[in-house]
Amino acid sequence: MEYIMNNIYVVGMGPGEESMMTQQAIDALEASDVIIGYTVYLNLLGERFADKELLSTPMKKERERCIMCFEKAHEGKKVAMICSGDAGVYGMASLMLELGKNYPDCDITVIPGITAASSGAAVLGAPINHDFCVISLSDLLTPWELIERRLAAAARGDFAIVLYNPSSRKRADYLKRACTILMEHGVTADRACGYVENIGRENTKAVTLTLGELMNTSVNMFTTVFIGNSQSEIIDGRLVTKRGYDIEGIHNNISSDKQQ
Amino acid sequence: MEYIMNNIYVVGMGPGEESMMTQQAIDALEASDVIIGYTVYLNLLGERFADKELLSTPMKKERERCIMCFEKAHEGKKVAMICSGDAGVYGMASLMLELGKNYPDCDITVIPGITAASSGAAVLGAPINHDFCVISLSDLLTPWELIERRLAAAARGDFAIVLYNPSSRKRADYLKRACTILMEHGVTADRACGYVENIGRENTKAVTLTLGELMNTSVNMFTTVFIGNSQSEIIDGRLVTKRGYDIEGIHNNISSDKQQ
Repeated sequence: MEYIMNNIYVVGMGPGEESMMTQQAIDALEASDVIIGYTVYLNLLGERFADKELLSTPMKKERERCIMCFEKAHEGKKVAMICSGDAGVYGMASLMLELGKNYPDCDITVIPGITAASSGAAVLGAPINHDFCVISLSDLLTPWELIERRLAAAARGDFAIVLYNPSSRKRADYLKRACTILMEHGVTADRACGYVENIGRENTKAVTLTLGELMNTSVNMFTTVFIGNSQSEIIDGRLVTKRGYDIEGIHNNISSDKQQ
Repeated sequence: MEYIMNNIYVVGMGPGEESMMTQQAIDALEASDVIIGYTVYLNLLGERFADKELLSTPMKKERERCIMCFEKAHEGKKVAMICSGDAGVYGMASLMLELGKNYPDCDITVIPGITAASSGAAVLGAPINHDFCVISLSDLLTPWELIERRLAAAARGDFAIVLYNPSSRKRADYLKRACTILMEHGVTADRACGYVENIGRENTKAVTLTLGELMNTSVNMFTTVFIGNSQSEIIDGRLVTKRGYDIEGIHNNISSDKQQ
């Protein structure tokens, strides 16, 4: 008897618009009979996927959504699980691989996408062009104490910082709390910061501001927040974290070999 | 007189193969007369860009490469600067925006790409599926003391860690030094780790191993290294950093509402 391996793709769709998906991601969705994901992400998919079986579970039913993938694969269907941004950055890749232990006949392929750290950075300028940390402020699955510990460590390491899930209805003051912790660990109120709403979707909004201003700003759950490192600057309205090139010698004739 | 704004794209091409570029990136390159970049990246571009003017400068001549963009734009050419991975993660976006102050007639658009943290993670499994840090071990532009400080902070914050530029001919022992610093700050020798060579190119190689093993491994300059957090596991050969979902209740009937 031939052993048939069922293939499941876990696909990062990027921020939303199809032009920001990779061809690899589009190919995986086109090759699938069933596309499973959170309803908001399914709705972002274009007409070209309208002939697929589109399945969802409510938010917080992520395990059930994953199991649905394995069950559909057992029915002989080709299955794609879609995630916004990158499937492997706060996406479903890890849960699929954890649960995959129970489904040895299913082979899981992760297809990366543009995560909000990258797509939001491009809108703001270049805020993570040097070493950076990505921290989610959601404490649904992570104890707040661990989030605090990571914010403190990020501040002490002088990292550029990207904050995912900076707010929700139940967590309206979390961004303010995060900014306070950063300031307690040495980040000054004049630190260059920025945030982007609705990256890669309608009504994209980008704002640059200081940490002191950010601290008293309300952001919504579709926002990604960027905190520069101590060398970051706002240049012509863009948030720029430098790599350290000497740009002073540009307009004279000093050889760059001496400087780098 | 009509004021003409010269547009320059700074484009992240992803790891290499065209199927991992976004349509937005391909469109920007196709709309350009001139594509400027490091020779290795130009060589990765497919036949479809063969009719473009392709220009390069040697490695370490990044400023000259950026100025070439502005000068070509002044000649009336549409210009794209290409970077491997994401233009805004150790790419040319920040230097272009810094130098852009001197060229107010040029409007710079950053187009994000899949950075090695994402593309390498997908090959390995899901190593950065929770809070993570990205640190470059190159001390060409960053003092080694600051790199050490960031490694220590990343360890203390229990972040998953991605190391870019883990080695070069002149820095053969840097990965070992980095592993030593992590261990001095609480990361144990059995920590789940992995690395990927030649992501998205020919001869991709992925390895999972412990930190103790990684410490004595030689990697080349085309390698991206992943260090899990304290909860990471190697599952069926994949490096998985969990988000914290309770997967135990999966096979009984406990309502997930009670658990999340």
